[in-house]
Amino acid sequence: MAGRNALFIPGPTNIPDHIRSAVDLSMEDMRAPDFPEFTLPLFQDLKKIFKTETGQVFLFPGSGTGGWEAAITNTLSPGDKVLISRFGQFSHLWVDMLERFKLDVDCIDVEWGEGVPVEEFAKRLEADTNKEIKAVFACHNETATGVTSDIAGIRKALDAADHPAMLYVDGVSSIASIDFCMDEWGVDLAVSGSQKGFMLPTGLAIVAVSQKALEARHTAQHTRCFFDFEDMIKTNAQGYFPYTPATTLLRGLRASVDTLLGEGLDNVFARHNRMAEGVRRAVTEGWGLDLCAKEPKWYSDTVSAICVPEGFDSAEVVRHAYYEYNISLGVGLSKVAGKVFRIGHLGSLNETMLLGVLGGVEMTLRDLGIPVEAGSGVAQAVDYYRTTRGQALAAAAE
Amino acid sequence: MAGRNALFIPGPTNIPDHIRSAVDLSMEDMRAPDFPEFTLPLFQDLKKIFKTETGQVFLFPGSGTGGWEAAITNTLSPGDKVLISRFGQFSHLWVDMLERFKLDVDCIDVEWGEGVPVEEFAKRLEADTNKEIKAVFACHNETATGVTSDIAGIRKALDAADHPAMLYVDGVSSIASIDFCMDEWGVDLAVSGSQKGFMLPTGLAIVAVSQKALEARHTAQHTRCFFDFEDMIKTNAQGYFPYTPATTLLRGLRASVDTLLGEGLDNVFARHNRMAEGVRRAVTEGWGLDLCAKEPKWYSDTVSAICVPEGFDSAEVVRHAYYEYNISLGVGLSKVAGKVFRIGHLGSLNETMLLGVLGGVEMTLRDLGIPVEAGSGVAQAVDYYRTTRGQALAAAAE
Amino acid sequence: MAGRNALFIPGPTNIPDHIRSAVDLSMEDMRAPDFPEFTLPLFQDLKKIFKTETGQVFLFPGSGTGGWEAAITNTLSPGDKVLISRFGQFSHLWVDMLERFKLDVDCIDVEWGEGVPVEEFAKRLEADTNKEIKAVFACHNETATGVTSDIAGIRKALDAADHPAMLYVDGVSSIASIDFCMDEWGVDLAVSGSQKGFMLPTGLAIVAVSQKALEARHTAQHTRCFFDFEDMIKTNAQGYFPYTPATTLLRGLRASVDTLLGEGLDNVFARHNRMAEGVRRAVTEGWGLDLCAKEPKWYSDTVSAICVPEGFDSAEVVRHAYYEYNISLGVGLSKVAGKVFRIGHLGSLNETMLLGVLGGVEMTLRDLGIPVEAGSGVAQAVDYYRTTRGQALAAAAE
Amino acid sequence: MAGRNALFIPGPTNIPDHIRSAVDLSMEDMRAPDFPEFTLPLFQDLKKIFKTETGQVFLFPGSGTGGWEAAITNTLSPGDKVLISRFGQFSHLWVDMLERFKLDVDCIDVEWGEGVPVEEFAKRLEADTNKEIKAVFACHNETATGVTSDIAGIRKALDAADHPAMLYVDGVSSIASIDFCMDEWGVDLAVSGSQKGFMLPTGLAIVAVSQKALEARHTAQHTRCFFDFEDMIKTNAQGYFPYTPATTLLRGLRASVDTLLGEGLDNVFARHNRMAEGVRRAVTEGWGLDLCAKEPKWYSDTVSAICVPEGFDSAEVVRHAYYEYNISLGVGLSKVAGKVFRIGHLGSLNETMLLGVLGGVEMTLRDLGIPVEAGSGVAQAVDYYRTTRGQALAAAAE
Repeated sequence: MAGRNALFIPGPTNIPDHIRSAVDLSMEDMRAPDFPEFTLPLFQDLKKIFKTETGQVFLFPGSGTGGWEAAITNTLSPGDKVLISRFGQFSHLWVDMLERFKLDVDCIDVEWGEGVPVEEFAKRLEADTNKEIKAVFACHNETATGVTSDIAGIRKALDAADHPAMLYVDGVSSIASIDFCMDEWGVDLAVSGSQKGFMLPTGLAIVAVSQKALEARHTAQHTRCFFDFEDMIKTNAQGYFPYTPATTLLRGLRASVDTLLGEGLDNVFARHNRMAEGVRRAVTEGWGLDLCAKEPKWYSDTVSAICVPEGFDSAEVVRHAYYEYNISLGVGLSKVAGKVFRIGHLGSLNETMLLGVLGGVEMTLRDLGIPVEAGSGVAQAVDYYRTTRGQALAAAAE
Repeated sequence: MAGRNALFIPGPTNIPDHIRSAVDLSMEDMRAPDFPEFTLPLFQDLKKIFKTETGQVFLFPGSGTGGWEAAITNTLSPGDKVLISRFGQFSHLWVDMLERFKLDVDCIDVEWGEGVPVEEFAKRLEADTNKEIKAVFACHNETATGVTSDIAGIRKALDAADHPAMLYVDGVSSIASIDFCMDEWGVDLAVSGSQKGFMLPTGLAIVAVSQKALEARHTAQHTRCFFDFEDMIKTNAQGYFPYTPATTLLRGLRASVDTLLGEGLDNVFARHNRMAEGVRRAVTEGWGLDLCAKEPKWYSDTVSAICVPEGFDSAEVVRHAYYEYNISLGVGLSKVAGKVFRIGHLGSLNETMLLGVLGGVEMTLRDLGIPVEAGSGVAQAVDYYRTTRGQALAAAAE
Repeated sequence: MAGRNALFIPGPTNIPDHIRSAVDLSMEDMRAPDFPEFTLPLFQDLKKIFKTETGQVFLFPGSGTGGWEAAITNTLSPGDKVLISRFGQFSHLWVDMLERFKLDVDCIDVEWGEGVPVEEFAKRLEADTNKEIKAVFACHNETATGVTSDIAGIRKALDAADHPAMLYVDGVSSIASIDFCMDEWGVDLAVSGSQKGFMLPTGLAIVAVSQKALEARHTAQHTRCFFDFEDMIKTNAQGYFPYTPATTLLRGLRASVDTLLGEGLDNVFARHNRMAEGVRRAVTEGWGLDLCAKEPKWYSDTVSAICVPEGFDSAEVVRHAYYEYNISLGVGLSKVAGKVFRIGHLGSLNETMLLGVLGGVEMTLRDLGIPVEAGSGVAQAVDYYRTTRGQALAAAAE
Repeated sequence: MAGRNALFIPGPTNIPDHIRSAVDLSMEDMRAPDFPEFTLPLFQDLKKIFKTETGQVFLFPGSGTGGWEAAITNTLSPGDKVLISRFGQFSHLWVDMLERFKLDVDCIDVEWGEGVPVEEFAKRLEADTNKEIKAVFACHNETATGVTSDIAGIRKALDAADHPAMLYVDGVSSIASIDFCMDEWGVDLAVSGSQKGFMLPTGLAIVAVSQKALEARHTAQHTRCFFDFEDMIKTNAQGYFPYTPATTLLRGLRASVDTLLGEGLDNVFARHNRMAEGVRRAVTEGWGLDLCAKEPKWYSDTVSAICVPEGFDSAEVVRHAYYEYNISLGVGLSKVAGKVFRIGHLGSLNETMLLGVLGGVEMTLRDLGIPVEAGSGVAQAVDYYRTTRGQALAAAAE
């Protein structure tokens, strides 16, 4: 098939050439005497990405799912009460994991298309006068529905209730793309992965942990070994790892962190917002379709889940786009299977790439008889992007 | 800058991942005893790309310009009379080279936007009863104006005049993208390069030579050494080269030839035509702009030169697109500087990539006040591409 | 520093160019409709590497340590009685993991330099008339001491005692380098990783599981999620994964498996033996130093641990070789820290590479005053390699 | 075949990973508005490699042979008298080229194994009272015999005779590896290529030209176009090229120049000398074989040509090493075919790599019955390298 696959799933994302080069390495000795000269500064700089000064960042071979497991098993014990809400496939999977680890899960189901019900959380925390809730879990960006939740709001709810529960955040598809302030928001455990905002191949779980959460490892009763914080703390202190790390990804991560900090995190976030808004205009004003996210406050800057009209199958959109036009879109998962398809707009992208996929989706929708006008979405994005050119950077510069 | 540069110059072209991997090699010994096991089949298969059974293909480190020089110096002598026409920067440069090599050049200037004036050629050949014209030169695809000429027609003119002049074709931006039939058209010297239809980095001049032209080396008086056919013939026969060849490009060329032959040349040409036609519809029917090519019969399937309206500067289009949107377009060269910008649509491309650059050009034109409607070009291409989906392949299959 | 780092740790190993190219990819959609066309045959071919027809192979993002954890948590329950022996850092770490997972560990410590005490195992299995031992653990190749154990012997002991305990094997530094016969030896869980015999970057735990062990997942009480077999079984059956897999490593694994099967596993093993024997001759007959492995029957074909004479510090050998000559050797770990250094000789290596590192070690030893004669080790290897040239292949061909 | 090919031909040389990454790029627009920001500083820094402040460096797609042709055709005319000596295949080929370009060649043949006969040159220059000799040609490093000539001596001879002839130097296998002082030695044309000391793939001719030689372009009567200095001067001044340049090699050249200047040229030369001397000790003192270079003053620090004893065929050495041990050595060329084999020791190499190939050659020689003792050469190199460790750098630091 001629030309590049248009990769617009919400992760793994497109790897910039220079980061790909940084990963394409000969193997090296992870016990070399000068290895710490590489790792120790990396550990420090990763903290900047999470906006934490007091926390510690761990790097596990694995994926975001492994990061979730690390967060849970190092800090909680079977039977601990935890509060969470479910509004998409990834928040669902997290609930499922909590249950498998035999936690006492208080799960608030909300409609898919909404996010964390902060007010309901506030009520339950307020009501928990015995402070039995050990942990509050929040999915910052629900990748299945394109919904971003208000983590700062949860912190306020916790503080308002003067509640000591720890705050766990799934930031797999938000961190390094959408603003995330670990210290300011009082997040205790934040989980991310290499293959989204970090623009790397899959293979690293990246977990940031507050001092409070680190302390919890001493009392947590879950068995653990591969994901054990204690082993990491001891060996990382010397610049090493408890077992063979994925050195090529670590070298790539160095390039990724340099790239992100070089652009400036606020510029990165503004850029993601601008890219996303162009897509949303195409979808809603150009094509006249609905986003799965119910209200603008839920809109995700990393992925848009787009509803197909009644009578059409979104899985067919994804399949047709892939086989006919070499475009990779996100499928609808679980409850929204057949109802939404997704355009990931995170990582190393620009206007031209997004105009291309918007045009590609237009071909697909029209092929399948879904009534959108040719060029209608692209027209919206063209004018949005060009009239906001330079604004993102300017805003960040203020 | 986030995202990929949108490379839409008419070469160098986008390198597919698997060809890039084939080039990204350790160095090797070009005198290794098994090196011929690699080179000899490559020499054979290259002939299929030129559609020649009787010719021989030479690979020089260099570029298309070096290929021109090889063609001239190996087969002609100072003072030889040659016939050529000029209608763009690349045919101009070829004329210039002929003059530098002290040939007696009969150059027919035609308007830029037209191609080889076959009827005028026919007349002059007819009139050349003493058969003084030693060679006829034709630029198959003038990259500066997006004009493709009728090589078969020139052959007919030569045959009609029963003229023994050799036929030289610049196929740098046509071969491997637009149908080229060396044997059928009686082409004696065809010149190409690695960085266009072959989808490789710049660095190889690829020259196909008929037996008749090979014979001419014995009488040609031009001095030559680096580009000498004789040295190549002797060493190539054993699978080697007269000096160190660019082995990484040769390995890449193997991958390129396999890819082209695997797709089928006719499919490759049909694909290029379809990609090109979508761009032309966007330009003419969507944006209402003119192509530099004066008539459809001149339309090039590898590059479109697009005229900006009076009062606008096409150089500014190219510059703005580059700095504001990370798009690389072709500038207007020489006579059409400031008047046209160019979209290359050859090599490894697909619908989505072209829709992206069309959208990107729309942003650019509107930014600069050139009156085109947002989405108008993309809309034309969207519907053209989707309604012709599969046709190219089907046509080729007949 | 000029030239390549000489990487002779016992993993990660040197990546051949073509496998490195196979990993150096753009990202892809792990939910693409044709992804199973890639994964399903890979799952099948991996079974050939383990020499199993009835087992199933799982691929987790992670490392060998993760593979151990997967093996334990999916098949055992806290309190289960297990039999193991300890004779090096990696068997030690496995014992440690078993204890963390609250198994009832019967650990037989033997001297470092020996391997699994098969006769003692036989006795304990014989004595376990109530069949309380649920699992027997064996480290096939102890990477810390260069000792290979007799897995077939353990199977015989189990059979002799008519004991139903499952057999777990750590094959991280043996599988794909030293003969391993999962079905023939009745191994129930075999753990490997991508970065040794598979010649890939670190990042995959590769776990082969017998049907009996798969059954055990239904009763195993350990909590697990990331490493859960059930999730893998369900999704792998369709060619997918329960969470984002490391697609670039999977593509590399395809190249690795093709390379191993293309060479022929028996040829691969014979090659490793021959490479190893040259090193051993250099060490013992050339330098007059002792191997950590006490007897030839323990000799490992993938790594040699070499004792420095009394009064010298092996850590200094490793450090000096690294800083002065850009050579990466394995350090002595735990009990043998300061006493041994290690030369890994597994993966993509040949005579020249090994002669280079042997010469490099000679420089290092002499620099540090350890009495070895210049050229003495290399001389042994030169004559061993050249007189056995072609034998490995011939033996395998019989 | 397992393991890496041991590439020890005298070019192409081993490419360091970071330079290979610098070459492994997407294509780019060579007419981009910011392209000069890349090229202009590169042109300047290249002058440092040649140690010239007043000269200009040109980069042609091609090879060293192309560079020779550029030097000749831009500055000389048919019939011009030139002085040269011949003592190996590459000086022979240069003589051949001079004759093809119809120069009046005064060629002094000296025995292969010696270099430029400076005294004889001095005599002829002295005798040329009419100053008819327009140019003196010298091969700085004859790659076929491993002989380095005294360029400074030739300058002295020219000055002593007060002779205005221009000085042309073939530095293909010396520049960036052996000290070369263009300005100090009054060199007018120096030719190199990308694939030797620059550690890049083949594909660039690198030609440095003095102001005097640049002037000569106005009177030189040779026809030329591809290699025309004038076109280069005009376009390079703006940061561009007269035709499509090999951008990936240019980007790699930037990395190469940075690496060379970062190490410090004098360190680079000292390193090459030390690597070479170890090989020479192995050859002469270890194996008891002769170098083709007749005296130490001719010894080349980039390549050693080694004589096989009477009755043996050096071609068989090269062939056996390649097929049996995956080692690439240089063959004997022309007059010394069958008599010498060559070990290239230039570019990115270190002790371990050279000890490996020395061991590999020992296996080969012994296999073929050439009487050398196993380990004998390596032993010499081991002790030479280790006792001179750090000296090269120290010497350079003085």
